[in-house]
Amino acid sequence: MQLARVIGDVVATRKEPSFEGLTLLIVKPITPAREPVGRPLVAVDAVGAGVGEEVFFVRGKEASFPFYPREAPIDAGIVGIVDHWDVE
Amino acid sequence: MQLARVIGDVVATRKEPSFEGLTLLIVKPITPAREPVGRPLVAVDAVGAGVGEEVFFVRGKEASFPFYPREAPIDAGIVGIVDHWDVE
Amino acid sequence: MQLARVIGDVVATRKEPSFEGLTLLIVKPITPAREPVGRPLVAVDAVGAGVGEEVFFVRGKEASFPFYPREAPIDAGIVGIVDHWDVE
Amino acid sequence: MQLARVIGDVVATRKEPSFEGLTLLIVKPITPAREPVGRPLVAVDAVGAGVGEEVFFVRGKEASFPFYPREAPIDAGIVGIVDHWDVE
Amino acid sequence: MQLARVIGDVVATRKEPSFEGLTLLIVKPITPAREPVGRPLVAVDAVGAGVGEEVFFVRGKEASFPFYPREAPIDAGIVGIVDHWDVE
Repeated sequence: MQLARVIGDVVATRKEPSFEGLTLLIVKPITPAREPVGRPLVAVDAVGAGVGEEVFFVRGKEASFPFYPREAPIDAGIVGIVDHWDVE
Repeated sequence: MQLARVIGDVVATRKEPSFEGLTLLIVKPITPAREPVGRPLVAVDAVGAGVGEEVFFVRGKEASFPFYPREAPIDAGIVGIVDHWDVE
Repeated sequence: MQLARVIGDVVATRKEPSFEGLTLLIVKPITPAREPVGRPLVAVDAVGAGVGEEVFFVRGKEASFPFYPREAPIDAGIVGIVDHWDVE
Repeated sequence: MQLARVIGDVVATRKEPSFEGLTLLIVKPITPAREPVGRPLVAVDAVGAGVGEEVFFVRGKEASFPFYPREAPIDAGIVGIVDHWDVE
Repeated sequence: MQLARVIGDVVATRKEPSFEGLTLLIVKPITPAREPVGRPLVAVDAVGAGVGEEVFFVRGKEASFPFYPREAPIDAGIVGIVDHWDVE
């Protein structure tokens, strides 16, 4: 999973029907030192995250597991809101 | 998922039979600031997107879900046309 | 999927048995402007492509779909030969 | 799989329920020469690894196999603690 | 699949049990011109490859297919030893 900061959201009226009702957030991957790393992505929110929060997200088909049995074509999903992390 | 701009299309007569009738578009990934990021890809269109539109696409086998039960070897698919996005 | 040019082939006598009889080609990813982008890969040919042709290939387990029910450990496959593409 | 050094851990109270009880560690990918390579990731620990240890981790849905039948949305997991490696 | 040179091996006593008896090799990805490209990885050997040999390896869950029905969390596997390749 990747540490990230939620920096925005996406509104899309015309979309694959299985996305209906899902929240699409924009996440900016960060390092443990909070430096940006890699490109921002659109992730589906599974945990009630909001703009400005630090989260971790998962890539791949796994991102759709929290919405089972819905079979949505999702490849990135926020699965945790971080309280804190510690590095050596 | 990745924000992108649809910049073109691909015509291929000789192709894996399961692609028959699918629309192949060229998408250029962009950041929320609309800067190009990463390489253009060929994506299958699941939502009626057209050249010049801003969309989000999904990578991986998930991209074939909208065409179920067709089992096509697809690894990128446009699954939403963006109305707008907001970033902090 | 990724646009690419077929630039060569690979001969391997000792290989996982499920590869028997498959054609292994070397593909060089290209942009719509025909500039090389990213590393060359070894892809299994599903459409009768030859050296010098422009194709698109798929990554991931999906690349083995055209050979179903054979279950080969393939992660890249040529699934179309391009007639032409157009970009804005 | 990727060689890495465990450099920290992550605490998250609000998370996808299937993560309950799993240990989230931060891994820094390294080359065989122990140079950092690529971005640090959050990986689930399947082998009792600790901060400062050298490990290898797996990416993708496979990372959830050690926790079967739990179906957690995991895309990175530590699956071995390295005794040593040798390179030519 | 990716061309690579086998450059070493990994010894790990404490590992996910499904790895028991598998050979872990370190592969250095190369271009058709034998230049190093991208980071070295740890791959499971399915074909009896040795240090110094040129091979191709597969990424993703597919890498575990040669060990079926063993369900190991593997994301990279050597599936062929190259005799030679030719490029235009």
